[in-house]
Amino acid sequence: MPDPRQDLLFPADPGVRTLARRLHALAAEQPIISPHGHVDPAILAEDRPFPDPAQLLIVPDHYLTRMLLSQGVPPGRLGVPTVDGSPTETDGRAIWRLFAAHWHLFRGTPSRLWLEQTFREVFGLSTALGPATADEVYDAIAARLAEPEFRPRALFERFGIEVLATTESPLDDLAWHAKLAADGWGGPGGRVITTFRPDNVVDMEFEDWAGNVERLGAIAGEDTGTYAGYLAALRRRREAFVAAGATCSDHGHPTARTLALDRAEAAALYDRGRRGTADAADAEAFRAHMLVEFARMSIDDGLVMQLHPGSVRNHNRWLYARHGRDVGGDIPQATEYLHALTPLLDAHGNDPRLRVVVYTLDEYTFTRELAPLAGGYAALYLGAPWWFLDSPEVLRRFRESVTETAGFYNTAGFVDDTRAFCSIPVRHDVARRVDAGFLARLVAEHRLDEDEAAETIVDLAYRLPRRVYKIGERSQ
Amino acid sequence: MPDPRQDLLFPADPGVRTLARRLHALAAEQPIISPHGHVDPAILAEDRPFPDPAQLLIVPDHYLTRMLLSQGVPPGRLGVPTVDGSPTETDGRAIWRLFAAHWHLFRGTPSRLWLEQTFREVFGLSTALGPATADEVYDAIAARLAEPEFRPRALFERFGIEVLATTESPLDDLAWHAKLAADGWGGPGGRVITTFRPDNVVDMEFEDWAGNVERLGAIAGEDTGTYAGYLAALRRRREAFVAAGATCSDHGHPTARTLALDRAEAAALYDRGRRGTADAADAEAFRAHMLVEFARMSIDDGLVMQLHPGSVRNHNRWLYARHGRDVGGDIPQATEYLHALTPLLDAHGNDPRLRVVVYTLDEYTFTRELAPLAGGYAALYLGAPWWFLDSPEVLRRFRESVTETAGFYNTAGFVDDTRAFCSIPVRHDVARRVDAGFLARLVAEHRLDEDEAAETIVDLAYRLPRRVYKIGERSQ
Amino acid sequence: MPDPRQDLLFPADPGVRTLARRLHALAAEQPIISPHGHVDPAILAEDRPFPDPAQLLIVPDHYLTRMLLSQGVPPGRLGVPTVDGSPTETDGRAIWRLFAAHWHLFRGTPSRLWLEQTFREVFGLSTALGPATADEVYDAIAARLAEPEFRPRALFERFGIEVLATTESPLDDLAWHAKLAADGWGGPGGRVITTFRPDNVVDMEFEDWAGNVERLGAIAGEDTGTYAGYLAALRRRREAFVAAGATCSDHGHPTARTLALDRAEAAALYDRGRRGTADAADAEAFRAHMLVEFARMSIDDGLVMQLHPGSVRNHNRWLYARHGRDVGGDIPQATEYLHALTPLLDAHGNDPRLRVVVYTLDEYTFTRELAPLAGGYAALYLGAPWWFLDSPEVLRRFRESVTETAGFYNTAGFVDDTRAFCSIPVRHDVARRVDAGFLARLVAEHRLDEDEAAETIVDLAYRLPRRVYKIGERSQ
Repeated sequence: MPDPRQDLLFPADPGVRTLARRLHALAAEQPIISPHGHVDPAILAEDRPFPDPAQLLIVPDHYLTRMLLSQGVPPGRLGVPTVDGSPTETDGRAIWRLFAAHWHLFRGTPSRLWLEQTFREVFGLSTALGPATADEVYDAIAARLAEPEFRPRALFERFGIEVLATTESPLDDLAWHAKLAADGWGGPGGRVITTFRPDNVVDMEFEDWAGNVERLGAIAGEDTGTYAGYLAALRRRREAFVAAGATCSDHGHPTARTLALDRAEAAALYDRGRRGTADAADAEAFRAHMLVEFARMSIDDGLVMQLHPGSVRNHNRWLYARHGRDVGGDIPQATEYLHALTPLLDAHGNDPRLRVVVYTLDEYTFTRELAPLAGGYAALYLGAPWWFLDSPEVLRRFRESVTETAGFYNTAGFVDDTRAFCSIPVRHDVARRVDAGFLARLVAEHRLDEDEAAETIVDLAYRLPRRVYKIGERSQ
Repeated sequence: MPDPRQDLLFPADPGVRTLARRLHALAAEQPIISPHGHVDPAILAEDRPFPDPAQLLIVPDHYLTRMLLSQGVPPGRLGVPTVDGSPTETDGRAIWRLFAAHWHLFRGTPSRLWLEQTFREVFGLSTALGPATADEVYDAIAARLAEPEFRPRALFERFGIEVLATTESPLDDLAWHAKLAADGWGGPGGRVITTFRPDNVVDMEFEDWAGNVERLGAIAGEDTGTYAGYLAALRRRREAFVAAGATCSDHGHPTARTLALDRAEAAALYDRGRRGTADAADAEAFRAHMLVEFARMSIDDGLVMQLHPGSVRNHNRWLYARHGRDVGGDIPQATEYLHALTPLLDAHGNDPRLRVVVYTLDEYTFTRELAPLAGGYAALYLGAPWWFLDSPEVLRRFRESVTETAGFYNTAGFVDDTRAFCSIPVRHDVARRVDAGFLARLVAEHRLDEDEAAETIVDLAYRLPRRVYKIGERSQ
Repeated sequence: MPDPRQDLLFPADPGVRTLARRLHALAAEQPIISPHGHVDPAILAEDRPFPDPAQLLIVPDHYLTRMLLSQGVPPGRLGVPTVDGSPTETDGRAIWRLFAAHWHLFRGTPSRLWLEQTFREVFGLSTALGPATADEVYDAIAARLAEPEFRPRALFERFGIEVLATTESPLDDLAWHAKLAADGWGGPGGRVITTFRPDNVVDMEFEDWAGNVERLGAIAGEDTGTYAGYLAALRRRREAFVAAGATCSDHGHPTARTLALDRAEAAALYDRGRRGTADAADAEAFRAHMLVEFARMSIDDGLVMQLHPGSVRNHNRWLYARHGRDVGGDIPQATEYLHALTPLLDAHGNDPRLRVVVYTLDEYTFTRELAPLAGGYAALYLGAPWWFLDSPEVLRRFRESVTETAGFYNTAGFVDDTRAFCSIPVRHDVARRVDAGFLARLVAEHRLDEDEAAETIVDLAYRLPRRVYKIGERSQ
C-alpha cells in the first residue's frame, strides 16, 4: 500500500488529486535551484558534521522560538544567545525536550510541516515527535548527524541542489566563497554562489552605518569620504561579488520607496549621514535613491535586483535588547508599491536589461498592485511569497491571485530564503506540491490542458528560476 | 435516512465531509463558553417569558433591519423605536410578515443561517420561512414562547451553556448580576458573569462623557474631579466587577491606537476633556493612553483585556438621527495594528501576566499584522472574527490565514458577541462546523493526524476559551 | 460523449459539479444584458464586416499587449498605433504569429479563457492556438469574418444580447446612436443605448479640460463661461443622452472621494480651473464635488450613477508617451470608500430615488467597506469585479466576500466592460459559471435550497441587472 504522505498537500477531491500527483511527479525530478537564501557558506566550505539536533534545528530557527515566546517561553530557555552574554540553555537535549513539549503549538503551521518532513525525508525517521518521543527522535537525529552521509556536501548532493546562493554584505571578504571555488564548488557557474546585499552600507539607520561605510572604502580600495567614492566602492564590490559567482543583489528595506535624486542632492544626503546629522526622512530618501542607483549599476553589470520591503525590524524591543537581531522580533507592515516604485519604473521599468524581483510580506497587494505592475512592466518579476507568507495556504493564494493578471511567467519561481540547510528540499517540495494542486485544479476546471500544465510545472520548479535569476548564464 | 442538515457547512468532498462529521461530533458535545456578548442580564435574572416572535427575533437585530433598509424599507416599519418617540410599527405579526416578504435578501448570509437553524433547532419547526408561511411560522414560535420550557433559564440549560458573560458599563449598578448571584446563577465562577466595558467613561466623544465621569465618581465613591480620582474610581469599579464574576474588560475604540503618556500629560488631557476643550486628537490620545493604563490595571487585578477596534460608529447619520445608536449604521474602517499597538507592547507585550485579546473588522490584516503579532508576543491573543466578519466564509478564511503564523493556540476561541440569546447555540455550532471543516481538510491533506485534529477541535470549542478568558479560574 | 468543456470553471467535486451544471443551464438560456461597456456604436450602426483577426482581436486589447510588453515585446510590434504616427506593424498575420508565439504567457488568465472560448464558441474552431497553428487559426477566423453571419448585427442577435449600453462623452454628438435609433436598434428602450460619461469635462487634469468645457458649451447651447452655465450644459447633455436611451451615467475617478461644496466654493474652483490656476488638490476637490452634483441631477432625471474609482491612469509613462491612453499602462491603487463616500451618503444615501453602483479595483475592501456600505444604504449597489478583477477567481472571491453582509440583492449583476464585441457572450458565460459554482457550493453545504439557488442565478444573470440599471424602464 502506498504511503498516503505521497499526497501531502494535494487537494482532497480524488480527480484533482490524481492530476496533482502526476504533475508533482514531473516537478519532483527537477534539481533544486535556490537563488535566494541565508545558508552560511562556511557550512559547505568546511563541510564539518552538523552540531547536535537542537543547535541545528531549534536554536537558530526564529519561526520556532517566537512561537514559544508567544506562549510565554523565553528564548533563553531554548538556547538563543543573549546580547550581553548572560547564559542561556546550552544542553541540546533539554532544549529539545522543552520544544517537544510545545509541539502542539505548531499544528497547522509550515514549521510543523517542514520539520516533520525533514525528520521523515532527510533523517529517515518514522516516529512522530511529541513529548513522549522527544528523546527517541533526538537520539536518532544525533546518530544520523554523526554519519558521513549527513555532512553538508553529501546532503547537498542528496538533496539534488543544482545551485545555492548565499547572501553576503559588501563588507564580507568572500573568503568562504573563495574556498568553495578552490574546491570546485563555487565561483561563476558554480554550485554555491553569493548574493550582493548592501543594506548595512546603504541604510543609515543600520547599526554603525558610518563605520560600515568606512570599512567599505577599506575593503574596496576607494575613498568613501565622498559620495562619488562611495559609489565607486559599491561598484568594485559588485565586481568582486560577480567574480565570486553572484548573479543577484538583494535589498531589504522597510518600504518599497524609490527616488531618483540628482547627484548633488544624493551627495548632500550622504554627507549628512556621515556627519551624523541625517534624520529618519533623510535615511528613507537615501535608501530610496540608492535603489535607483543600484538599478543603473544592474543595467551595467547584469546583477538581478531583489527587493524585500515591508518588515519593521526589531518591533519586539524587549527581545531585541535581550537577544539582538533576527530572532523573531520583526513584524510586517502595510506596503505600498504603486507610488513607491514609480521613480524606478519611470527611469528603467521598460528596459529589458534590468530585472527587478519584488517580494512582499503584504498579501493584500497581490491583485491590486503587484500583479498589475509585473504584468505591465518588462523589468518587474514577482518573487515567491516570503517569510510569514512562505506557507501552503499563501502559496496557493498567491497563484490564485496573481496568475490572472501577471500569468505564471512574470513570477520568478520559488525561493526558500532559509538558513535552515536541512529543510531546503522540503521547502521546495511544499511549493511544488502547492503549484501542482493549483495547476491540477485549472486542468480539472478545463482552464488548461494537462500537457500545458505539465510544461508549466517544470518551468515553475526549474526553468523559470534559472532564467529569471540568471543562474548558470555566466558559467565559464 | 439521516437529516442531510447534519452536514451543514461541511466541505462537499465526501472524504473530507466524513472527517468533518467525526470532528464536529466531538465539538458538539462540549458545553458552550460564551465569554463575550451582549445579552441583557435582566432576561436571565427575571426569567420571564420572551415577547412575541418579532420583538424577540427581528426588531432588536440590526443585521436584519439594516438589510431591509438597504433595499429601501425604513426601520420604523420593522418596529425599530425612534429617538424622538414618534411611532413605529408595533404589531408583531405585521413586522414578521414584512420581514418574511424580504427573506430572499438574506440568501447566503449568516443571518439566514442563524435564523433558520434557530427555527429548526431551538423552536423545532420544520416549515421553511417565506412570504407564504409567515403566519404559520409566527404562530408556531409564539406558541412555543408561551411554554415554560422556553423561559430564558430553561433555554440556557437546554443550550448547554456553561458560562455566559454579559457586558456592562462602570455606571451599571450590577443589580441584575446581584440578583443572579443570589439565585445561584451569578458571581465569581457563576454561570452568568459580567464584563467591564468602560467606553462611556473613557471616550470623550461619547455622548455626555463629562456627565458620565461625574456619575462614575458617585457610584465609586471617588472624586473624579481629578485624574487621580478618576483612575481610583475605575479601579474601584473593576473590583466591583470582579466581585460580580467578571474575568474580562472590553474596549471598543475607533482605532487600535495605544499611547503611554506620563501622568501629567494624561491629567492635562483629562482636564481638557472635563472642561469641554478637548478636540478630536485629544480624545484619540486619551483613549489610546487609557488602554495602556488599563493594561497596568489588568496586570494587577487579572482582568483579560478585549480590544474591539475599527468601527466608525453612526456612519449612517440619517439612521442615527432617527433611531439612535446600535441599529445598523456603523461601518468598519481600515485598521492598523502594528504601529498602533507598539506603545502597549513595548510596555507590557512580553509580560505573561497580561492578556490582550484583539478582534478585528478588517480581515486584510490577518496575515500581515495580526498573526505575526499574536505569534510573537506573549500577551496577545486573536479574538474570533467579529460582527460583519462573524460568518462561515470569514471564519474559514481566518483559520486559513492566521493559523500558519500564529497556530491555533494564539487564538482565543469563538465568541458569539450577540444580544440574540436564542441564537447562541446556533452561532457556536456554526463556528464549530467551520473549524471541523478546516481541520478535516488539514487531515485530508496529511498536514495533521486525526487524533491531533480531534484534540484541537475540543480545545477550540471549550478548553481554549476557558483558559484564555480565565473562565472558572476564580470560582469559589 | 458530452464535451467536457460543458463543465468549464465548475468546481471539481462531482456532487457540486452536477448542481452547478443544473444551475448554469438556467442562466445560460437568459438573454444578455450588457449595461456597461465600451463597444464602439459605429460597429453596430454601420454593420460592416470586421477587419482581419489581428486588428479585431489583438491590436485593441490592452490585456494582451501589456502581457507581451511585460515580457519585453514592445506594443508597436503588435500593431498598436503611436502618438506621433511613427510606423508600427500593420501586417495582421505577422501580428497574429507573434502573439501566438507568446500564447503560453496567458495560461491561467481570463484573456486565455475569453479568447479560447471565442475561438470555439463564436468562430466554431476546434484547433487550439499555438505557435504551430497560428496560421490555421488566423485563416479560419478570417474566412468566418468574411461571411454575412459574422457581421456585427448578426452576431448581436446570435449572442442573445437584449440590450447593450455603449459609453460616450458629453462632447459626443450621438450621431451613431441616432442612426441606430433610425434603424430601429437604438433610442429609449432600444437594443443599443448610450451612457453619459462626463470625465473629460469634469476632471481638470484631463487633457485640454478647459477646451472641452468650451466645446461642451457649444454642443449644449449654454455659456460654460460660468459655473451655472456649466451645470446647465451638463443637464442639457444628460437630457440628450436620456433621449438616446441612456439609463446610466458613468464616472471614472482616481479616488472615490465625494464633497458637498456650496455653490460659491464650487464656482470658485471652476473658475480657477478655467483660468489654468487650479492645482491637483483643486482638481480632486472639483471631481469630488461634482459627484454630489451629479447625484442631485440623478435624483431629478433618474440616471443611475456608476462610479469607477481607483485607477492611476498612464502609470507607465514610456507607454503613454509612445502610444497614448488606454493601451495597458494604468495600474490600480488602494481605494478608500468609507470616508470618501460619506458626503454623498450623508446627502442622499438613504434616498431610494438615487442609485449609485460602485465598482472597485481593490478587492481588499470587499468585506471591510463595500459590503457593509451596500448592505446599509438604500442608494448603494456593488458593481461586478472590474478590469483586473474581472476574472474567475475574483468573481468567486467577490461572492464569497460580499454576500454574507450585502446578500445577492445589493449587487448589480455582471457587466462586461469591454470593447471586444466578440467576447461579450463568453464573458457573461464565465460570470454565470462562477455564480453557478458558488451557488452550487451553498446548496451542497445545505446553506441554500436548490429552488432558491435556481431563482437566484436567474436574478443575477438577468433580472437584477435589468432592474438595477433601469434597463427597459423607459421603453416607449
